[in-house]
Amino acid sequence: MSIDRNSRPVITGFRWVPDFARGFVKDLRVRWACEEVGRPYEERLVTDDFVKGTEYRKEQPFGQVPVYREGQVALFESGAIVLHIANQSSQLMPSNPVDAARVVSWMFAAIASIEPFVSSLADIDLFHADEEWAKLRRTAAVEQLSKRLDDLSDALGGRDYLVDEFSGADLLMACVLRDISDQSTFERHPNLVHYLARCTARPAFVKALESQLTSLE
Amino acid sequence: MSIDRNSRPVITGFRWVPDFARGFVKDLRVRWACEEVGRPYEERLVTDDFVKGTEYRKEQPFGQVPVYREGQVALFESGAIVLHIANQSSQLMPSNPVDAARVVSWMFAAIASIEPFVSSLADIDLFHADEEWAKLRRTAAVEQLSKRLDDLSDALGGRDYLVDEFSGADLLMACVLRDISDQSTFERHPNLVHYLARCTARPAFVKALESQLTSLE
Repeated sequence: MSIDRNSRPVITGFRWVPDFARGFVKDLRVRWACEEVGRPYEERLVTDDFVKGTEYRKEQPFGQVPVYREGQVALFESGAIVLHIANQSSQLMPSNPVDAARVVSWMFAAIASIEPFVSSLADIDLFHADEEWAKLRRTAAVEQLSKRLDDLSDALGGRDYLVDEFSGADLLMACVLRDISDQSTFERHPNLVHYLARCTARPAFVKALESQLTSLE
Repeated sequence: MSIDRNSRPVITGFRWVPDFARGFVKDLRVRWACEEVGRPYEERLVTDDFVKGTEYRKEQPFGQVPVYREGQVALFESGAIVLHIANQSSQLMPSNPVDAARVVSWMFAAIASIEPFVSSLADIDLFHADEEWAKLRRTAAVEQLSKRLDDLSDALGGRDYLVDEFSGADLLMACVLRDISDQSTFERHPNLVHYLARCTARPAFVKALESQLTSLE
């Protein structure tokens, strides 16, 4: 089976989201990847009702965005999609296998070893701040995230990017770091603050963010 | 740079873990993948003190196992390692790109969309059961996990595996489902119970589990 590399892929995102989610919906990661590799894409904007329906669940079992279609090939999960796009271009994936292995490791690290702690704290701060369990748990949630940020900060050190040049690993990590709900926790790591600023100053990110915001009603 | 496919890869695991973790440390996923593709490997067993040290952090930034080395290529994060091994063999990754894209999507789904909810509940049940916040939060944690298991159960339906034949997606998903700390929640989904039993009845899993248990002091 051949893949038509010239067809425009289609990214599914939301037509509307609440204010706090604008600029943070995960199709941003996929838009950013397409912009980095210079790949034009089509948008398919859907409603929350639609993604909860039976038909869409065949594309995305959890009723979420994004999904991505490129000819016959369809993917869900933003990490899988970014990896798929990255694998098509040296812009996001080094051509030598030693560096590529490190990039893929860091892509999984962003999603498996940092994001769950970011999400736990965001869950408390954005959705449950006034609940008793959240008040009791918040300090520990901050400590757990801080520990992971310490490790990430040590691993990055004085370098600009996680593995040599900017890659799919930095793209996912930057998106995860943007979701941190407690800025004072994040700002305790100046090299991470500069790293995030460096990633999000990239023209491809700026364009992707603008595209997401423009697409939302 | 060439990779020597004949060299034995080295999997790093723990020399000792507490009883509750025996048979559940994440090097199991990597051992299982190697067994499925028929790839002999070497073990490198380390202590908790060692993985917390500065030297090892260069291999694994969060001081965890497993790491995996195959000649010059080194990976961390069990998901990244299983994907790397899967990509070398049709035993764990379909050769046609349409099915391969679905397998990679499900591999990320296991780690990004199911595991965080399994871990949240396990954190409550294994480490904080007597704490006030955990008592207040447990019902919601069970509900969140149940919702994801409902979606997974619907997606699997009456099929044996997530995508056609057994793949790296089933390997990761089965390992995540094994970590569910509340059996009554899991058992509400009979097709998932049978699915997990089907996956863990595979000779490669049985051998991998035995290898991990045997390696532990």
